Amino acid sequence: MNTSALEPHECFRVHSKDLLGRVGTLTTKSGEFQTPHMFPVVDPNRTPFGQKFFNELGIHAIMTNAYLHRRARVQRPRENVHDTLQFKETVATDSGAYQILQYGGVEVKPQEIVQYQEEIDTDIGVILDIPTGFRSDAARSEWTVSETVRRADEALRVRKRNDILWVGPVQGGVHIEQVRRSAREMAKRNFSIHALGSPTELMESQRFEVLVDMIIAAKRELPPNRPLHLFGAGHPAMFGFFVALGCDLFDSAAYALYARSDRYLTAEGTVELLDMEEFPCSCSACSGRTPSEVRKLTVPERVDLLSTHNLQACFSELRGVREAIRRGRLWDLLETRAHTHPALKRCLNRIASYSADLERSTPVVKPHGIFYFGPVSNNRPELQGYKARLARVPINAGSTVLLLPGRWRRPYRADPRYRSLVSQFEDERSVQIVFYTLPFGPVPSELDETYPVAQTEGLDTGDSNEHLAKAEMVIGYVNRLKPRMTVLVVQGDYGRAVLAETRRVLPKTRVKPVDGEKTEPETIANMFGKLIAA
Amino acid sequence: MNTSALEPHECFRVHSKDLLGRVGTLTTKSGEFQTPHMFPVVDPNRTPFGQKFFNELGIHAIMTNAYLHRRARVQRPRENVHDTLQFKETVATDSGAYQILQYGGVEVKPQEIVQYQEEIDTDIGVILDIPTGFRSDAARSEWTVSETVRRADEALRVRKRNDILWVGPVQGGVHIEQVRRSAREMAKRNFSIHALGSPTELMESQRFEVLVDMIIAAKRELPPNRPLHLFGAGHPAMFGFFVALGCDLFDSAAYALYARSDRYLTAEGTVELLDMEEFPCSCSACSGRTPSEVRKLTVPERVDLLSTHNLQACFSELRGVREAIRRGRLWDLLETRAHTHPALKRCLNRIASYSADLERSTPVVKPHGIFYFGPVSNNRPELQGYKARLARVPINAGSTVLLLPGRWRRPYRADPRYRSLVSQFEDERSVQIVFYTLPFGPVPSELDETYPVAQTEGLDTGDSNEHLAKAEMVIGYVNRLKPRMTVLVVQGDYGRAVLAETRRVLPKTRVKPVDGEKTEPETIANMFGKLIAA
Repeated sequence: MNTSALEPHECFRVHSKDLLGRVGTLTTKSGEFQTPHMFPVVDPNRTPFGQKFFNELGIHAIMTNAYLHRRARVQRPRENVHDTLQFKETVATDSGAYQILQYGGVEVKPQEIVQYQEEIDTDIGVILDIPTGFRSDAARSEWTVSETVRRADEALRVRKRNDILWVGPVQGGVHIEQVRRSAREMAKRNFSIHALGSPTELMESQRFEVLVDMIIAAKRELPPNRPLHLFGAGHPAMFGFFVALGCDLFDSAAYALYARSDRYLTAEGTVELLDMEEFPCSCSACSGRTPSEVRKLTVPERVDLLSTHNLQACFSELRGVREAIRRGRLWDLLETRAHTHPALKRCLNRIASYSADLERSTPVVKPHGIFYFGPVSNNRPELQGYKARLARVPINAGSTVLLLPGRWRRPYRADPRYRSLVSQFEDERSVQIVFYTLPFGPVPSELDETYPVAQTEGLDTGDSNEHLAKAEMVIGYVNRLKPRMTVLVVQGDYGRAVLAETRRVLPKTRVKPVDGEKTEPETIANMFGKLIAA
Repeated sequence: MNTSALEPHECFRVHSKDLLGRVGTLTTKSGEFQTPHMFPVVDPNRTPFGQKFFNELGIHAIMTNAYLHRRARVQRPRENVHDTLQFKETVATDSGAYQILQYGGVEVKPQEIVQYQEEIDTDIGVILDIPTGFRSDAARSEWTVSETVRRADEALRVRKRNDILWVGPVQGGVHIEQVRRSAREMAKRNFSIHALGSPTELMESQRFEVLVDMIIAAKRELPPNRPLHLFGAGHPAMFGFFVALGCDLFDSAAYALYARSDRYLTAEGTVELLDMEEFPCSCSACSGRTPSEVRKLTVPERVDLLSTHNLQACFSELRGVREAIRRGRLWDLLETRAHTHPALKRCLNRIASYSADLERSTPVVKPHGIFYFGPVSNNRPELQGYKARLARVPINAGSTVLLLPGRWRRPYRADPRYRSLVSQFEDERSVQIVFYTLPFGPVPSELDETYPVAQTEGLDTGDSNEHLAKAEMVIGYVNRLKPRMTVLVVQGDYGRAVLAETRRVLPKTRVKPVDGEKTEPETIANMFGKLIAA
């Protein structure tokens, strides 16, 4: 019987969005859980932690390996995987493609592993794909993609249960064109979830830029209403970045593997237990204990304790990422995390280069203002969106422009130094007031009180390149107005950069600079009044 | 009886240092605790949380207000403050100077409040100083400083117990010259601890730059072996910055005040309970609860719960700060925290401007490498220290310089592209190999394997100002060598900036540029070999 899979809208609901990230609920036949989520990967052949353990940490979906489950039970009757793991809620199974490749096993046929996952009553199953890996050349990559597509069709043909969510893996490795083709092919097929393969080695070697390109390539081709799973990502420091690119699901055994080598996960990096004198964390594993006490435990006790901490570090970060999305502050979270390691800063820079993708899926108005930290913030969706809005402001051509410094107070018109000047002239039809600001470049008074201008907190980094870039935007805008005359109130280094740009672009006779540091606002008002009356 | 106070070396031991921060142990007659520490301020007239509550959170020293304690007990016999607070370990008392000013009270004489603190058996007492506040003019500031000094002398004269640690407050407010004078005067007197007054309003209005100047001014005059207390600082987002400037102790009721207005503290900022759907934190107060459940609690239950979380957020960050100091990573922590708000980034920029102060107290060699994130990292003590070391490298004048790009591999000589070139020429006496690197500028091969060069992780921000600044350092260094000839292998934008600087500074006939992107290392080796043989 070839029934159709659950349609995506039935299993995945999105509640909030920011950048390409979203907060959602995924529903399986065994329960529901919030995304972004990381499935803790458990070994089907070890004593399970069990439901109570995971639930106490707020975890409602775990994952195990169908191939390893099967290999240890070849001669036995089928065992419900929920019983094996002592976990009634959602259990996802990986097909074991990676292990089969690694151990060179040929004993499993693709349809067998699909059937096996159905027989053990999995909730989310993965077809037996061919991982590309990150060392494959273009030809091998192409073959893995084609073979995975062939197997996808076979899997969808042989599957019997329509209450299991099937995952359609996207392969291609570092060959972006193949990733794109793989995603395009998988998108056509009736999967409930997609997954992107081969990130682990790239993460281990900190080649995040390539991974960013791969995720974006896949994301552009996949249906947005299906969740995207990133195989094997389990470090809390990374979640925000991958979520910002549109990944909803992760799976990892890192929490346990790191624990076995005495490594302690934090959202700000990994620490060796041996290097620690105090646990900064307040979770149930850390609180009331010292690292030296933990070092004295037996190995199984220590591994359990560190695993428990590591899981909490992951889920604490996932909750933080979800909260950041709900409040429209995911970018802010990334700026923070990016400064925990230069490789993550490079990762953010690469993400920022896809600002158009990010902007499309970011809400236009947010509950909170934004932060501007200098050049990197220019690629924030909110600043990109502002540029587009600026281009749509009706042009009051031939007016007299009053170009004022937009300083620390917002809305900029509220600056005590220039408040009366603004209110005196803003209703004059022949006058256009424009603030030159660092976060936004030109802010015509019409936009001064709109989101996010009035809500932005920023700083002047003193970076002359940034002054120049924003001065170019300001004068580019002023030039479009074809002003009769421009009065520029020059203040600070940025003001001097605007002046230099004015001189380069505007006719000399049409610009009147005023030293804003030495001239009283009343004097400027008098001069400006006479000018527009003339 | 006028006995001398405990000498500082008896009560305060320093274990680790980084920037101006230190990890230490403060010992009082009632116990010891680790610094940096924040004394949670408790109201002497409310039902106390008690010892068990604080100990479970790892807190071994709290603070209350001697003036408020006294005012509620005027007609009663003296009550041991440890009994009032149900806390056997260290209790510090503030003199209540701030409250007396605020309520305009004149009913307490300075010596009375000193005696009262002795009578209630406080462990750490504060004399009744005159807070300058941040609105005082210069004359008022001068008077508060002089009057506080006069009162200090009186307090030291009237005090009877030598088992109490007395705090000598530094006043002066935003008048840096007065802060300096106040610190100089207090330093001469026999106090065990010093404190800096008036930061609260500056913190509330985010004028961190002024506060940085005040702390540095005080710190320069105070004996380094006495701990420095910053009055009224209790937000976890700020601890790292103040600790980096040399503050060891804080006190605050913010954990409770914020809880009363439904605000949730995190090291990355404050969140309104009303805005939250999930608690990111895993502490005992948050775990297993949702914000909507907490919103439904009675007010006292909710305030207790949020206070408990807020305290854990503070102490989690304090433990993190202490761990960062022990591992020599306090600067890294600041770079991270600085990106949670532009005001904190400005704060870090100001701290960075005191790089000489920071460098003096930072260990020369650390257990870990450093991160370079671009211009702001240039002020890290490690990079400042490198500059000093560079100036001491013996000059091999008149040699032939091979100027190679220092790329991503460290030590730079390990770069696979240039490894053989380096090993072929590094032992030639007439040759000096220098790498041009972004974190360090020039790295002569002698320094390539020294700390922190070989351990640094960085990135090229692509900032042309930074390229230029580092190119100037590189060529300044090369010029000092008075090279017979310089062969420059040009790679990337930074390489081109070095080339431009070479042309500006060095005689044209003495420079041979090579296109590093197109020329094979073997070709460069041949050319260079002929050149030095010539």
